[in-house]
Amino acid sequence: MAMMVGASRRLAGRSNAASMLVAGMLRSALCRPISTAFREERDTFGPIMVPADKLWGAQTQRSLQNFDIGGEREQMPEPIIRAFGILKKCAAKVNMEYGLDPSIGKAIMQAAQEVAEGKLNDHFPLVIWQTGSGTQSNMNANEVIANRAAEILGHKHGEKFVHPNDHVNRAQSSNDTFPTVMHIAAAVEINSRFIPSLKQLHSSLHSKSVEFKDIIKIGRTHTQDATPLTLGQEFSGYTTQVKYGVDRITDTLPRMYQLAQGGTAVGTGLNSKKGFDVKIAAAVAEETNLPFITAENKFEALAAHDAFVETSGAVNTISASLMKIANDIRLLGSGPRCGLGELILPENEPGSSIMPGKVNPTQCEALTMVCAQVMGNHVAITVGGSNGHFELNVYKPLIASALLRSLRLLGDASLSFEKNCVRGIKANRERISKLLHESLMLVTSLNPKIGYDKAAAVAKKAHKEGSTLKEAALSLGVLTEQEFNQLVVPEKMIGPSD
Amino acid sequence: MAMMVGASRRLAGRSNAASMLVAGMLRSALCRPISTAFREERDTFGPIMVPADKLWGAQTQRSLQNFDIGGEREQMPEPIIRAFGILKKCAAKVNMEYGLDPSIGKAIMQAAQEVAEGKLNDHFPLVIWQTGSGTQSNMNANEVIANRAAEILGHKHGEKFVHPNDHVNRAQSSNDTFPTVMHIAAAVEINSRFIPSLKQLHSSLHSKSVEFKDIIKIGRTHTQDATPLTLGQEFSGYTTQVKYGVDRITDTLPRMYQLAQGGTAVGTGLNSKKGFDVKIAAAVAEETNLPFITAENKFEALAAHDAFVETSGAVNTISASLMKIANDIRLLGSGPRCGLGELILPENEPGSSIMPGKVNPTQCEALTMVCAQVMGNHVAITVGGSNGHFELNVYKPLIASALLRSLRLLGDASLSFEKNCVRGIKANRERISKLLHESLMLVTSLNPKIGYDKAAAVAKKAHKEGSTLKEAALSLGVLTEQEFNQLVVPEKMIGPSD
Amino acid sequence: MAMMVGASRRLAGRSNAASMLVAGMLRSALCRPISTAFREERDTFGPIMVPADKLWGAQTQRSLQNFDIGGEREQMPEPIIRAFGILKKCAAKVNMEYGLDPSIGKAIMQAAQEVAEGKLNDHFPLVIWQTGSGTQSNMNANEVIANRAAEILGHKHGEKFVHPNDHVNRAQSSNDTFPTVMHIAAAVEINSRFIPSLKQLHSSLHSKSVEFKDIIKIGRTHTQDATPLTLGQEFSGYTTQVKYGVDRITDTLPRMYQLAQGGTAVGTGLNSKKGFDVKIAAAVAEETNLPFITAENKFEALAAHDAFVETSGAVNTISASLMKIANDIRLLGSGPRCGLGELILPENEPGSSIMPGKVNPTQCEALTMVCAQVMGNHVAITVGGSNGHFELNVYKPLIASALLRSLRLLGDASLSFEKNCVRGIKANRERISKLLHESLMLVTSLNPKIGYDKAAAVAKKAHKEGSTLKEAALSLGVLTEQEFNQLVVPEKMIGPSD
Amino acid sequence: MAMMVGASRRLAGRSNAASMLVAGMLRSALCRPISTAFREERDTFGPIMVPADKLWGAQTQRSLQNFDIGGEREQMPEPIIRAFGILKKCAAKVNMEYGLDPSIGKAIMQAAQEVAEGKLNDHFPLVIWQTGSGTQSNMNANEVIANRAAEILGHKHGEKFVHPNDHVNRAQSSNDTFPTVMHIAAAVEINSRFIPSLKQLHSSLHSKSVEFKDIIKIGRTHTQDATPLTLGQEFSGYTTQVKYGVDRITDTLPRMYQLAQGGTAVGTGLNSKKGFDVKIAAAVAEETNLPFITAENKFEALAAHDAFVETSGAVNTISASLMKIANDIRLLGSGPRCGLGELILPENEPGSSIMPGKVNPTQCEALTMVCAQVMGNHVAITVGGSNGHFELNVYKPLIASALLRSLRLLGDASLSFEKNCVRGIKANRERISKLLHESLMLVTSLNPKIGYDKAAAVAKKAHKEGSTLKEAALSLGVLTEQEFNQLVVPEKMIGPSD
Repeated sequence: MAMMVGASRRLAGRSNAASMLVAGMLRSALCRPISTAFREERDTFGPIMVPADKLWGAQTQRSLQNFDIGGEREQMPEPIIRAFGILKKCAAKVNMEYGLDPSIGKAIMQAAQEVAEGKLNDHFPLVIWQTGSGTQSNMNANEVIANRAAEILGHKHGEKFVHPNDHVNRAQSSNDTFPTVMHIAAAVEINSRFIPSLKQLHSSLHSKSVEFKDIIKIGRTHTQDATPLTLGQEFSGYTTQVKYGVDRITDTLPRMYQLAQGGTAVGTGLNSKKGFDVKIAAAVAEETNLPFITAENKFEALAAHDAFVETSGAVNTISASLMKIANDIRLLGSGPRCGLGELILPENEPGSSIMPGKVNPTQCEALTMVCAQVMGNHVAITVGGSNGHFELNVYKPLIASALLRSLRLLGDASLSFEKNCVRGIKANRERISKLLHESLMLVTSLNPKIGYDKAAAVAKKAHKEGSTLKEAALSLGVLTEQEFNQLVVPEKMIGPSD
Repeated sequence: MAMMVGASRRLAGRSNAASMLVAGMLRSALCRPISTAFREERDTFGPIMVPADKLWGAQTQRSLQNFDIGGEREQMPEPIIRAFGILKKCAAKVNMEYGLDPSIGKAIMQAAQEVAEGKLNDHFPLVIWQTGSGTQSNMNANEVIANRAAEILGHKHGEKFVHPNDHVNRAQSSNDTFPTVMHIAAAVEINSRFIPSLKQLHSSLHSKSVEFKDIIKIGRTHTQDATPLTLGQEFSGYTTQVKYGVDRITDTLPRMYQLAQGGTAVGTGLNSKKGFDVKIAAAVAEETNLPFITAENKFEALAAHDAFVETSGAVNTISASLMKIANDIRLLGSGPRCGLGELILPENEPGSSIMPGKVNPTQCEALTMVCAQVMGNHVAITVGGSNGHFELNVYKPLIASALLRSLRLLGDASLSFEKNCVRGIKANRERISKLLHESLMLVTSLNPKIGYDKAAAVAKKAHKEGSTLKEAALSLGVLTEQEFNQLVVPEKMIGPSD
Repeated sequence: MAMMVGASRRLAGRSNAASMLVAGMLRSALCRPISTAFREERDTFGPIMVPADKLWGAQTQRSLQNFDIGGEREQMPEPIIRAFGILKKCAAKVNMEYGLDPSIGKAIMQAAQEVAEGKLNDHFPLVIWQTGSGTQSNMNANEVIANRAAEILGHKHGEKFVHPNDHVNRAQSSNDTFPTVMHIAAAVEINSRFIPSLKQLHSSLHSKSVEFKDIIKIGRTHTQDATPLTLGQEFSGYTTQVKYGVDRITDTLPRMYQLAQGGTAVGTGLNSKKGFDVKIAAAVAEETNLPFITAENKFEALAAHDAFVETSGAVNTISASLMKIANDIRLLGSGPRCGLGELILPENEPGSSIMPGKVNPTQCEALTMVCAQVMGNHVAITVGGSNGHFELNVYKPLIASALLRSLRLLGDASLSFEKNCVRGIKANRERISKLLHESLMLVTSLNPKIGYDKAAAVAKKAHKEGSTLKEAALSLGVLTEQEFNQLVVPEKMIGPSD
Repeated sequence: MAMMVGASRRLAGRSNAASMLVAGMLRSALCRPISTAFREERDTFGPIMVPADKLWGAQTQRSLQNFDIGGEREQMPEPIIRAFGILKKCAAKVNMEYGLDPSIGKAIMQAAQEVAEGKLNDHFPLVIWQTGSGTQSNMNANEVIANRAAEILGHKHGEKFVHPNDHVNRAQSSNDTFPTVMHIAAAVEINSRFIPSLKQLHSSLHSKSVEFKDIIKIGRTHTQDATPLTLGQEFSGYTTQVKYGVDRITDTLPRMYQLAQGGTAVGTGLNSKKGFDVKIAAAVAEETNLPFITAENKFEALAAHDAFVETSGAVNTISASLMKIANDIRLLGSGPRCGLGELILPENEPGSSIMPGKVNPTQCEALTMVCAQVMGNHVAITVGGSNGHFELNVYKPLIASALLRSLRLLGDASLSFEKNCVRGIKANRERISKLLHESLMLVTSLNPKIGYDKAAAVAKKAHKEGSTLKEAALSLGVLTEQEFNQLVVPEKMIGPSD
């Protein structure tokens, strides 16, 4: 009874958290009849009322009530939920080899498949900010799958005909399932979304590099005029950065493919059978088509999440690369009249609510904001990763959600940047040519002929007097006009000499 | 026509982002008839189709299509939307003083009030990862309010009877509205949720400090046994940390109360009238009951968000405090039989999916995970804050959303920790007493009598032989039993002597 | 005997650390006769040989041998050593009030004064990376002062006529002295170097703001052309950032002025006398002329270093400000022919080893590099600050050294930037004027007259056709030439209208 | 003349920077006759006086005067200086193939070799905080080598018989030499010091893992009692973490081995000859015995330092691993009487200045402090790495020095931890056994027999009543004593069952 009060209090929301919660609740309310009905579920703490139309059980309900932190936005990321579906399906499959009743096993597999496909997302209400082992989300998965499997077999919810612990969680512990699910979710995201997004960006930058290969422009070092290069060369630097980014994240995967499953509570594998760990890794590999293997050392796999800190380090490196690239592109595209103006960026939307006609490098802005958040998430992951105690790191949901958010945001932002910016970049050839020929740094090609000190005198004189380099050089008498014309040729300055 | 295709393509989702988007779309689909109907809206880029049942206009729609980054979870935080309601209401009010048609002004005020109350949340679909000035969210607010105000006045959506730029955004720029809204949202959150949450935690810790004032226990430095203190003294340290936390965040508010409004596009106030800035700050102050004033220097207010970096620094400090406190509490509560076991923490839920009867310090875990994320967000905010260019920092949505998330999470987690953990902590007096009397560090009280070197010899002998201090001291002959009994009295060791 | 081997092995250096150590040793060797002579010192661990010409004792020597981390560069920062001098002098003074033999007390005061003046720096060889309580540096101070005081009183080194623990460290613990010394060192650095450096930079920026007050220039938002402002206004934004920086660091000082001294081992004040804490804070205040007081809660003062995390947060904010300012200045000074070219920066040195005549914004570079390091140190301090256990945070030397380094570097770099860059900045009036008059964003002043949509059409037409705004406006027939001339006046666009 | 004033002003130090500078100067003063003599050097800025006994030239002297930031402690790290020696030697060798006068070339090689050996360290006075390209340190190397080579050839300093730019820096730019030197220095440090240190720690942890393989102990998850494992298994987790750490850093080396040399000013290779880049990489590879190759894309190699961000990410991961390990070890070693007490750590020094006989886990403290600094440096490197502009990243000295410091500190601290802590760890078998047999979590082995819910009831009853598990189980009648005795056997709980 007290529980019904508890539940309805939650529906009403506490006063100062009201807005967001109520908004969420109202939205649900429009979708389906409000859960006026409740049923009783129980766990080792006793009975508790849960909404009758939800598949979750007692432990999920307790977590909902005990961790009122952040509201709906903070729910466990969907890739984790789906990975639970994959894992529980595989666990049932392997457990049948070890004696699990096949009818129950198959029902679990069917229910788990629905979770893997995202069909039961509405039954996973828990937030990231729960127990640090992710136990409550593991139990959420166990409870939902148990109730759904029971339903499939013609039994009622809450009766535990299929038991969340003894059947669905058989031979498992949250302490090995949650890290397993973290690795599955991250590896799937990296392979199916993140790397393809980077590759698309790489491909587009490479195309630009080829398209611009004959456009000679002034280089800039220290933000100051320097010797020339081609616009294609400049873009080849960006292309290489993204290419190495793919290499970097790929190089971290061997450790991400190691699964903790089979370690159970503390890494020893207590209550699992010999060979269970290898078989379940193989099943997950088959299910996902990714080369997962069982972790070489289960103690490390539970107590530390170094693989996530490492992968986040690669993502952090990529964010540093992309911030550099996006910054360059917006500065090279600055103007239209008072900036550098070498690039013409696509116009996608009005840029200003007050300045008519303004067009801004908004894709660069979205991307660099994402990069900053990724750098921040990396610190969060590092802090969480370094603070494990004894046999278990209990920052798992934080670490998982932060990396998954970084991957999603940086992947999406890379795609958006590619599609809405890079792809449409045009070179402002007229402007580029004008700047190139005004530059004083063409003087560098005189070094081998007249030496650094005299060349410097030429440049300084031209700068001081606002004259051309040639005028200054002839005036100083350091070489003839013919010599000058032979030496100062931008086309000859874009590579080493023979 | 192309636009309708664009819109429906978006509804379908691109293949590799399908899952989450479709999930979200399906959810909406269950709620209300799918927006098969569209109406035309236009901006300076031309016409575009928007869902007929939505109040937003052309620029919002363009942003939706151009920034497909992260999905629904990444929408602009609600406190920002509400603050736009507050600001636009105040702007209309002040603009009427400067000649805005009162019938239009009042309709804007009414529509803006609905935004401020969260009633139009469904009409704010944009994500954080858009233009770095927040222009698109400003236009989203302008468009929604304009259409809603027009509706109030009996006009159709999209006709611009009330114009989003000329009326709703009058005398404003995104460049001053967005920073204004950032400051309003943060200051409101800090005052209405964050500080009250910290104060509740402070109060609870203080109560414990009083409750435990007579329980003498062993101190620990370097994780090693040290001289005694009372459990109340130990908790008084935590209490002081939280108290100073409130001071810290409060000390940053003077700069948070400064509003950029009136600076318009670059800080000069072009297209606004003299006095507009002061009046609008006063109107916001009245509306929110917080001491907002106009920023002393509008150039700083647009081009930098040092106030956010500073405030985030205070929140970061608080997260360091809370991480320390939560860590101590879980370690002091470790056990039940193989840990320190001095505290008994409330049992809120089953702790393990495999180990029956296990109860874990889950509230400490949720809180410390939040602290790690706050530290990460602080770095994100610092990176964003340091990367402004010229007259405008274009990391505004990142900076705003990261700080608002930190405030919400740390406030909620503090409340949850208070309610579900601190409030119910009990001292395990028996265990505390046992440990106290076994400790060797009581030897410290011998220093003034026999000197540091001899006292060390006593402790080392007792340690080596597994004996009591008294046995060791008498055996070494450094003092009599009577002397020992007079000196080694834990009750006398918990404060300076007279 | 074993110890002599140990000591000489250290002198020789272990093979793979050889280079730096040997370099250091060789330098000493050139200065003074190599310490071929050793004397015996002892502590509770027994005898150990120390170089005969050094004042340190057994515990310092053990630390030297046990913490071979990083070499000479990593020695405890000098402000910490000097602060130990201040503290130990004050402790002796107050201890005499509580019964310390005046002849010994006065000798301690004299020796401590020498430490405070940096005269005995060569006797403080320990590195930062030692015990996390700083115990070994406290003992280093105790041992050096004891031996020096003994010397003053005509006694030999190592005889402990003046005892490092019983006399010099009387009524103290490392656990309260080291935090006290941290606060003294930081507060002194902030007041004597850091704030004055910021103020000098502020003053110089303010002068430039006044000097440039009549120079109207194009504004830039999103790196794109925007409405005009004066160069003086632009610099006033920087000036305000630095001014608030001073406010920010100043607002953290109340907590920095709280001294832990009197808490002794765990915060209780065991082995000190009532009133000792207040008196010693008063003595330090008098000695330093800063308003130090005794910490309100000694448990917090030992177990946490939130004051350092907070202060570092303020320094971090200042680094974000300075990075923005330095970035702007180098971009505004970019060129000389292919950049923005609005500012002329002082030429201090040749800029390139290959490009003759190149001059670079090197002061901006040094400053922004320092800012990046400060941001990093802030994370280090946060991590250290959050990881205290029970009665003692054992990241003290890290926290202290990182903040002191940040303060020193950012203060010095601000001064260098002021002196070698800001002070000499000149406006390139010709270039500024040219850019201003070419800009399209002057169109913004047409909004109130012809509305945002028509104004946008004018700007877009001019942009597309490469024409002037006036030509486009007249061609579109949206206003007359006279109207245009009255409205588009940069001088009227740099503030709100009447 | 003005310059002599400048120089002596520097010797005197500016008032508020006096202490440290003067200290440094005084030390030099004691070493060798004060440089009362000066000679004139000149560069393109004109003449300047430099100390007569120093080999550096005009540009070094200007940097000394223009960048008075941080004092001696902040000098460019020695591995950078030595790497300059290696590079300049190789450059001379290759340049001779391209026409450099052999007598000059050989003298340069000889002089450069002295730099590589650290013999000329005293002639490299510049600090990290200079121009962001490291140009001044490159010129410092050029000047010292030129003057020393001239000396070798019988010419006077300052006469430029060997020219710093035209001879020593031939076919080079700071923009490619400094990144080259960064990569050489980092790769050498990683291979010669860092990885060997980690391997030594790994080996020692592995030995402990073997030594402790039969000691069964209670596991701890969430800091709470959990199911048992062996102490050897626990250490095997640490061992694996360090092993993977070696893999992680190794996996980043392919990009670290890429050298920028040959890109010259902007990446094009202007003023170098075809093939120069490949030959110089080969020469460096031969000189260092490491597989350096020329960078695939020189534009990336100058404009970004992603390789450093990536490597720092690996080092950051290792710091997270080591922080976890050191934390565990100090907590497992906590006590001696009031902690967990399972490990006995070596006693290396007195632990407290007030608590006699106290021994602390100081090596853990030094190591974890280093880890925190490494995490901070990683953020500094990320910020620096992300902020390059156009053809050149100008945070090079920051990035290089921060990574080199991290490598040095983490390598040294790992060695110190290994030697002074890990190697000497002993298991407290008596204590471990006592805790194991008191634990309630042995109940987990009942799950397969009686199910999770009943097992939980047994554990809860035992906890509540302070009884043993067996008593509770029999009292609840869930199994017989014989069954209990067969199932609850710690020795059977440390692995999966057959």
